[in-house]
Amino acid sequence: MKISTVKGTNDYKPQEVRLRDYLQNKIIDVYTHSGFEHIMTPVIEDIENLDKSEGGENLNLIFKIMKRGDKLSKAVEKGDVKDLADMGLRYDLTLPLSRYYANNKADLILPFKTIQVDRVYRAERPQKGRLREFVQCDIDIIGSKSYKCEIELIATTAKALLAINIGGFKIKVNDRRILKAVLTSMGFVEDELDSVCIVFDKLDKIGKDGVCAELADKGFESGAIDKFAKFLDRECISLEDVKKLITEDDMQYVSQLETIINESLAIADGKYDVVFDISLVRGQGYYTGTIFEVESTSFKGAIAGGGRYDNLIGKFTNENIPAVGFSIGFERIFSILNEKGYKPVDTEKHVALFYNADEYSKAYELAEELRKEYNVSILERPKKLGKYLDKLEKNNYYGYLVFGEGTEVKAFANN
Amino acid sequence: MKISTVKGTNDYKPQEVRLRDYLQNKIIDVYTHSGFEHIMTPVIEDIENLDKSEGGENLNLIFKIMKRGDKLSKAVEKGDVKDLADMGLRYDLTLPLSRYYANNKADLILPFKTIQVDRVYRAERPQKGRLREFVQCDIDIIGSKSYKCEIELIATTAKALLAINIGGFKIKVNDRRILKAVLTSMGFVEDELDSVCIVFDKLDKIGKDGVCAELADKGFESGAIDKFAKFLDRECISLEDVKKLITEDDMQYVSQLETIINESLAIADGKYDVVFDISLVRGQGYYTGTIFEVESTSFKGAIAGGGRYDNLIGKFTNENIPAVGFSIGFERIFSILNEKGYKPVDTEKHVALFYNADEYSKAYELAEELRKEYNVSILERPKKLGKYLDKLEKNNYYGYLVFGEGTEVKAFANN
Repeated sequence: MKISTVKGTNDYKPQEVRLRDYLQNKIIDVYTHSGFEHIMTPVIEDIENLDKSEGGENLNLIFKIMKRGDKLSKAVEKGDVKDLADMGLRYDLTLPLSRYYANNKADLILPFKTIQVDRVYRAERPQKGRLREFVQCDIDIIGSKSYKCEIELIATTAKALLAINIGGFKIKVNDRRILKAVLTSMGFVEDELDSVCIVFDKLDKIGKDGVCAELADKGFESGAIDKFAKFLDRECISLEDVKKLITEDDMQYVSQLETIINESLAIADGKYDVVFDISLVRGQGYYTGTIFEVESTSFKGAIAGGGRYDNLIGKFTNENIPAVGFSIGFERIFSILNEKGYKPVDTEKHVALFYNADEYSKAYELAEELRKEYNVSILERPKKLGKYLDKLEKNNYYGYLVFGEGTEVKAFANN
Repeated sequence: MKISTVKGTNDYKPQEVRLRDYLQNKIIDVYTHSGFEHIMTPVIEDIENLDKSEGGENLNLIFKIMKRGDKLSKAVEKGDVKDLADMGLRYDLTLPLSRYYANNKADLILPFKTIQVDRVYRAERPQKGRLREFVQCDIDIIGSKSYKCEIELIATTAKALLAINIGGFKIKVNDRRILKAVLTSMGFVEDELDSVCIVFDKLDKIGKDGVCAELADKGFESGAIDKFAKFLDRECISLEDVKKLITEDDMQYVSQLETIINESLAIADGKYDVVFDISLVRGQGYYTGTIFEVESTSFKGAIAGGGRYDNLIGKFTNENIPAVGFSIGFERIFSILNEKGYKPVDTEKHVALFYNADEYSKAYELAEELRKEYNVSILERPKKLGKYLDKLEKNNYYGYLVFGEGTEVKAFANN
């Protein structure tokens, strides 16, 4: 038997579960107070739904669940790899939410504001900070095209991040339509834009020269690439720079994004920054408009991300249902705080009550009494009590009591 | 796209999530106060661990996760169905706990008392009350052979059931070793006992005649079957009846079970019954001694079950590590309370704050103020406010406020 967890997954010890619960409860509490409602969906989804979901790169990372019985035997006989699975583990919470909406829409009031805090799965190549089983904390607003949803999601996600004391952060925003308008102005043509975006998304990793080289490799027109390279030379690209490039038709997206940024900054009240970032792309194929990402100023990398996906739900309902969501990357935050040794204020006091073999019933009664105040573990008195007590103290026990030696808990020295 | 959840799984709406959270938190709270510690393990486990785990019937119900990339192609080429999967979804929390112990034992103090509240998966034929994704609430004690662990698990599980007001219940106990001693006395031989137990486990479903017919079908000796049939004719089989049949060597198991029952009854203090039931078998192959099950007296069927499994952990560690556990079947309890329309006392008051398009920022400020007391959903004022308010009222909103029309929340009539 193998004793370690499968690659990219973790066992969580009691003190880690306490921290995870504390963080999740804080986040859910902020979201609930802001009028969002907590729903839950299954971890497993129909494989067709996952495959057709425009999840971008994530579609290559789906864990697939094999058919069973006769259906499996038939598929193996045919030798068709694509036909072996009938379900898969979800790779995010957005697809299940879209399906949830379609499945339950008769009962829902629009706009529907939801909370989801749950596990998702991706068959990533394991590396530090990349898990194959991980938790996301999402809020979404379904059924409204208003840019005020974006403002609300930014403000609410920021409130949650402030509540858990993760340190400084800034929120970067962009709009897929603005990015595409800029690329068009460089000379790229409509049906190239998605591919160019995918390459551009690597700017952080491979730099400007890397992006341009890859675009050239892929055979895009060199005039457009040169123009793009020159544009990226600026130290900081503002919405004012963008305005000079794009058409009158696309100007509405810029002014909407300006409003989102300005109103968000007013709500932020100096506690965090909200900035335009033309290089923000986000991987998922389903985003249609605004996109956002939260960057920690103390730790490298994104700690939250999201955007507007106005066409995904329509795939289920054949109606036009706009939606926008923001997802906190819970594991990044947990691992930062866990490595720092952060402990939530813990009012729970864990106490050991020792009994000798023939005193169990009476000791149990005392334990029940003590449980009004403490978490009490009832334990047979070990032969080497002193050594055992040392271990308990190291494991954050508050104190102990030996049955028959008084009824007061003896606190360990560090309490 | 398919809008329903995959077979045997559920979407949970906000009011259902509230009830599920309430129940889980109550149960975890009782367990924590009783000195147990909450751990978490991944949903996915290595397929070999699952296959070798002696899970009885459950081994036929494992959802298997396909290999990926080259490994999958090679396995398909070979056409070997058994070689297609490298992982699977866990079918219970006991196997992951055993692996957890082996993986983390350097840091653990024995006895290790754990809580697990989490999802498990079984590819059951879907039917009412049988889910393919469901939650179990387990407590386990690892590292002690003492029968006091059994008493503690019975008392603690009962306390949790009392705390959630599930109604009357009784706890049935048995010991695999007693059952086998009785079967031996009937004339069944050692290596038949497990197969006889599997048939006997169906007593509830197919009755005494059905059990005897199936035993005859399977070719067991008719003398033993007749003796067994006669034994089962008694209205109620007590431990006194058992004592008359078994050998002196096996008597220790009977007296230990008597002690467990008597001490548990003393703790129960009339709030529930604890009874010997010779027909209690429990499906899992890994149980080695005491087994228990909680039967609701208001609703049909078991709401919790467990037992001692002294050999499972040894498969990981090659040491002899005794263990015993008790698992609450959370979904049964949830569905009973949900169908009854049970609502936890909910102190959260959900309020809608309506704004007109140009008042968003000021309305947002008011919302933040109101959030000190209420859960506030900020919403653009709909054209037909009256109809919208009716919907909110039906969806358990507490009240509403239109921005600009005072600052007091207007409660709906039913509050």
